Amino acid sequence: MSDDASPSRAADRTQAILRTTVELAQEVGYAKLSIEGVAARTGVGKHTIYRRWPSKGALFLDAVLTPSEPGLDYPDTGDIVADLRRQICAAVDLLGRPPLGPLYRALVGEAQHNPAVAAALNERFIRPQADKTVARLRRAQQQGQLSADLDLDVAMDILSGPLYFRFLITQEPLSHEYVERVLDALLAGMRPTP
Amino acid sequence: MSDDASPSRAADRTQAILRTTVELAQEVGYAKLSIEGVAARTGVGKHTIYRRWPSKGALFLDAVLTPSEPGLDYPDTGDIVADLRRQICAAVDLLGRPPLGPLYRALVGEAQHNPAVAAALNERFIRPQADKTVARLRRAQQQGQLSADLDLDVAMDILSGPLYFRFLITQEPLSHEYVERVLDALLAGMRPTP
Repeated sequence: MSDDASPSRAADRTQAILRTTVELAQEVGYAKLSIEGVAARTGVGKHTIYRRWPSKGALFLDAVLTPSEPGLDYPDTGDIVADLRRQICAAVDLLGRPPLGPLYRALVGEAQHNPAVAAALNERFIRPQADKTVARLRRAQQQGQLSADLDLDVAMDILSGPLYFRFLITQEPLSHEYVERVLDALLAGMRPTP
Repeated sequence: MSDDASPSRAADRTQAILRTTVELAQEVGYAKLSIEGVAARTGVGKHTIYRRWPSKGALFLDAVLTPSEPGLDYPDTGDIVADLRRQICAAVDLLGRPPLGPLYRALVGEAQHNPAVAAALNERFIRPQADKTVARLRRAQQQGQLSADLDLDVAMDILSGPLYFRFLITQEPLSHEYVERVLDALLAGMRPTP
């Protein structure tokens, strides 16, 4: 047809492979997901998949992160508490629940065994999100809405950490009410107010 | 020899299986660890292992947690900040670094794919530690060292979460200096002091 027919077919094939990876992981669980299974269902050769994704972990990372990347941009309404609440609730809704939640949990699990997946998860998702969070916190700090002493890199970790702890370790449900409780504690601090 | 020779041999065999599981995991990594490999090196039948541990994950959990359980008792010197610092630094030294660190990371990774391992990790390690933390925080709150408004269950999560976030997600090194930065931020709170 046109000159770009072949690149566009390749892009369609990539999308089909990523979609199928997610479908299969949801059907059989991450442990039983295989590149062979994805190849069979997509109708492409497994070597085609291995040429682009060196491992099941790398393929799965791409499949889980590709659709969600645009979803977590940081609001700036001028009210840092409202913006944190909105952004963290959006993250919980997207990553802490089905359909994406169990896939994201499996991805973080794989990152514990596969340093390349851990590095790619950080590069593609965690670090860009952290940079946005720190930039938003810095504006709020400059406007006097956050303590001038607040260590912004640590602030990023104390905002994210409790949610990940609940999601990965205690595996209790995440809710907006829980986000509220965490924010209340982080904003007020643990020390008694004089 | 004596009547208790057989239970004592069984206990020795259990210890040998757990020790070998840790050794093999350190040599080949969790992904390549297998009950068959542990059976071969320990010189016991694999069915003997499967009778007690229903999966590789269950065996690995037992092998990682058994030696460390006594290590994280909570000090109570009467100074909550000093005690938190000491306890969290001890946890970081034990779980956040070799030799146990990589094994603990693999265990948490497995918990993301295996709900029975996640439940056992909570029951044997996370919940007892959390109960001790909340009890220590409650005494400090009663003594006026922590804010009367502090939500103690959330306090547990905000104390643990940032460390787990760094350990599991960004995978940057954990240090006592980092523990200090986290404690400073949590104690002071994010809001500007008037």
